[in-house]
Amino acid sequence: MVEKKLIYMDNAATTAPDSRVVEAMLAYMTSAYGNPSSRYSIGYEAKNLINSVRVTAAKLIGAQPEEIYFTANGTEADNIALQSLKLTGKRHLIVSAIEHPAVLNTARQLEKEGFLLSCLKADKNGIIQPEALEAAITPDTGLVSVMFANNEIGSIQPIKKLSEIAHRFGSLFHTDAVQAFGQLRINVSDLGIDYLSASAHKIYGPKGVGLLYARRNVPVKAISYGGGQEYDLRPGTENTAAIAGFGRAIELAAEEMQIRAVNEQKLSVHICNRILREISGVRLNGPEIIDNDFSKRLPGNMNFSFEGVRGISLALRLDMEKICVSTGSACSAGNDRPSHVLSAIGLSDAEANSSIRITIGKNNSPEEADYLVDKIKEIAEEIRQLNNYRI
Amino acid sequence: MVEKKLIYMDNAATTAPDSRVVEAMLAYMTSAYGNPSSRYSIGYEAKNLINSVRVTAAKLIGAQPEEIYFTANGTEADNIALQSLKLTGKRHLIVSAIEHPAVLNTARQLEKEGFLLSCLKADKNGIIQPEALEAAITPDTGLVSVMFANNEIGSIQPIKKLSEIAHRFGSLFHTDAVQAFGQLRINVSDLGIDYLSASAHKIYGPKGVGLLYARRNVPVKAISYGGGQEYDLRPGTENTAAIAGFGRAIELAAEEMQIRAVNEQKLSVHICNRILREISGVRLNGPEIIDNDFSKRLPGNMNFSFEGVRGISLALRLDMEKICVSTGSACSAGNDRPSHVLSAIGLSDAEANSSIRITIGKNNSPEEADYLVDKIKEIAEEIRQLNNYRI
Repeated sequence: MVEKKLIYMDNAATTAPDSRVVEAMLAYMTSAYGNPSSRYSIGYEAKNLINSVRVTAAKLIGAQPEEIYFTANGTEADNIALQSLKLTGKRHLIVSAIEHPAVLNTARQLEKEGFLLSCLKADKNGIIQPEALEAAITPDTGLVSVMFANNEIGSIQPIKKLSEIAHRFGSLFHTDAVQAFGQLRINVSDLGIDYLSASAHKIYGPKGVGLLYARRNVPVKAISYGGGQEYDLRPGTENTAAIAGFGRAIELAAEEMQIRAVNEQKLSVHICNRILREISGVRLNGPEIIDNDFSKRLPGNMNFSFEGVRGISLALRLDMEKICVSTGSACSAGNDRPSHVLSAIGLSDAEANSSIRITIGKNNSPEEADYLVDKIKEIAEEIRQLNNYRI
Repeated sequence: MVEKKLIYMDNAATTAPDSRVVEAMLAYMTSAYGNPSSRYSIGYEAKNLINSVRVTAAKLIGAQPEEIYFTANGTEADNIALQSLKLTGKRHLIVSAIEHPAVLNTARQLEKEGFLLSCLKADKNGIIQPEALEAAITPDTGLVSVMFANNEIGSIQPIKKLSEIAHRFGSLFHTDAVQAFGQLRINVSDLGIDYLSASAHKIYGPKGVGLLYARRNVPVKAISYGGGQEYDLRPGTENTAAIAGFGRAIELAAEEMQIRAVNEQKLSVHICNRILREISGVRLNGPEIIDNDFSKRLPGNMNFSFEGVRGISLALRLDMEKICVSTGSACSAGNDRPSHVLSAIGLSDAEANSSIRITIGKNNSPEEADYLVDKIKEIAEEIRQLNNYRI
């Protein structure tokens, strides 16, 4: 019997590293293993690699290389950006209600330390309306942090409008772009972004490396201290192999962004149409997909609520069919509380707990999409029958 | 013409990942790429990997798995350990003068934030004498941090005696064991260690992963906030491939520790004898090597001062011969200040700046050792002639 192939549709949680990424990493694990701070050939080679990836990363978002700091992951970049509030001389922080825990929990920590925290509500589509920011912001606001695109429901935020408001009030603007970097076109100057967080493993790069973009001359607060690496902002021997992989992943994302997006959108529309048409009692969470308009949502992100079906049951049954989807973000998959994002867009606990997230990536095929829908249909029906569900 | 093979003798800066380590990592980059927080097969696989490496790491130092937290590197582990002082209710921190910048600069940061800092002097061999700690410690001391073995001169510290004094005064004890973990036998219970920092890339593992051991029930302070990974102490998607590599590196270190040490000691004795015998005006910094006694120094670490020769010139000339050695720790190689460690053991600036560090690893051969000495002899003589040096 042939073993069933894994159908991986949780690309917002992490992605399978591209084989070209893995290849790029290998050199830095086998021959160019020097410490980038060392003053000999294989040290310089490692140092040059880091600097060249800095150029690659900067180019993707219209930044300067010296504005890019490599970190261990997106979470660390978020932490540095938010904790930089401490250097602004202001006391007020604004974040959105649908941020990733890396932003939300750092914000709560700052609140514990005496800063004032405001949390912006999202509308029913998971969009932070500029008016909400206008209402919350004050001259004492030092930092506004709103994610570029939401990890659970894929909603894209009006970054430019939000950053304009922030700047008008003398505040800096941070965006957690972990779900958008390398997937959507981002120009930090055009969009007025002062800090941006990104992660390699969401774009077919390795785990263990992220980056913080910090505009020249904005304050940046180190959260750890040591040997002076990354312009004295983020110490510790650089993870050269991972940075090499990140660089390759960025290059590939830059080349393939358009084609990846088109393919993911096609599959998303197909999956969405079939699910909404063929299964009763389903809603798509986040912005609607009308006339193939993806200006307000990520190309591959879909979150559905299935009335009368527990999301976790559906996901676990799909796992048995070797299909990977999630019930929310991986970073809170370990607990059973209803998603704070789904709650924020108005879902009841029951609705939130009846949801699954499907995130299409560049490796998914139309056949996989159809197989997924067939299986969801079958399993949802079974679960509903077991529960004597009536629609 | 055959290209000359690289002779890498800067194993204290970083090591070449073992091919078996790289192999162990590959699975987590190609097939088992799931997010460890995800609730499906390849997520569980990643989670299980992390837990199994936790067991492997704990076993090496006589700890319990739940006392091990994976970090991005040794620096991050040091930062968490030292900043945990904030949770002790005490105000006084003691570190040694010869710590790595990860400890020293974190200590200085704590001092800036209002904590009291005492710095223990080293004796001429680079050993922190227990009497020095006795003299500095007070009932308000919350943490004593003394490294297990020094990165620049290889001196091994009297950890057990130091931790006993710390505990007698109600203080916790941290050791930065980045240079010792996997190289020397360490049992945290026997030695009375409350916190220990380690790094993978110093023991033929990958860059980008380290660990903090924190004894059960000691306070541990998160320095970043997010998705709850690593028992809510160190958030961010786990670097599974690197953790897999770390696990393999630890297994290999456990198996090969004795044989590696014996080989490195042999080469060290040989290099040391030849250099001291064949080159005039040289001193070995750190504890003497008498009767092959390595109880007070790392098996592969040698630091020499060459009168009348700038260390950096010697190192750069050796690089041209494809021999990698350093002038100090890689983490301060970027600046030209004399080594704080060599200053601490009484060297003048001139003496400190005439030093190089040779750190032997498991891949070095007797032929390489002889070639190194031949080249040092030749180059030192040349430099001295250029400088009209007279001994």
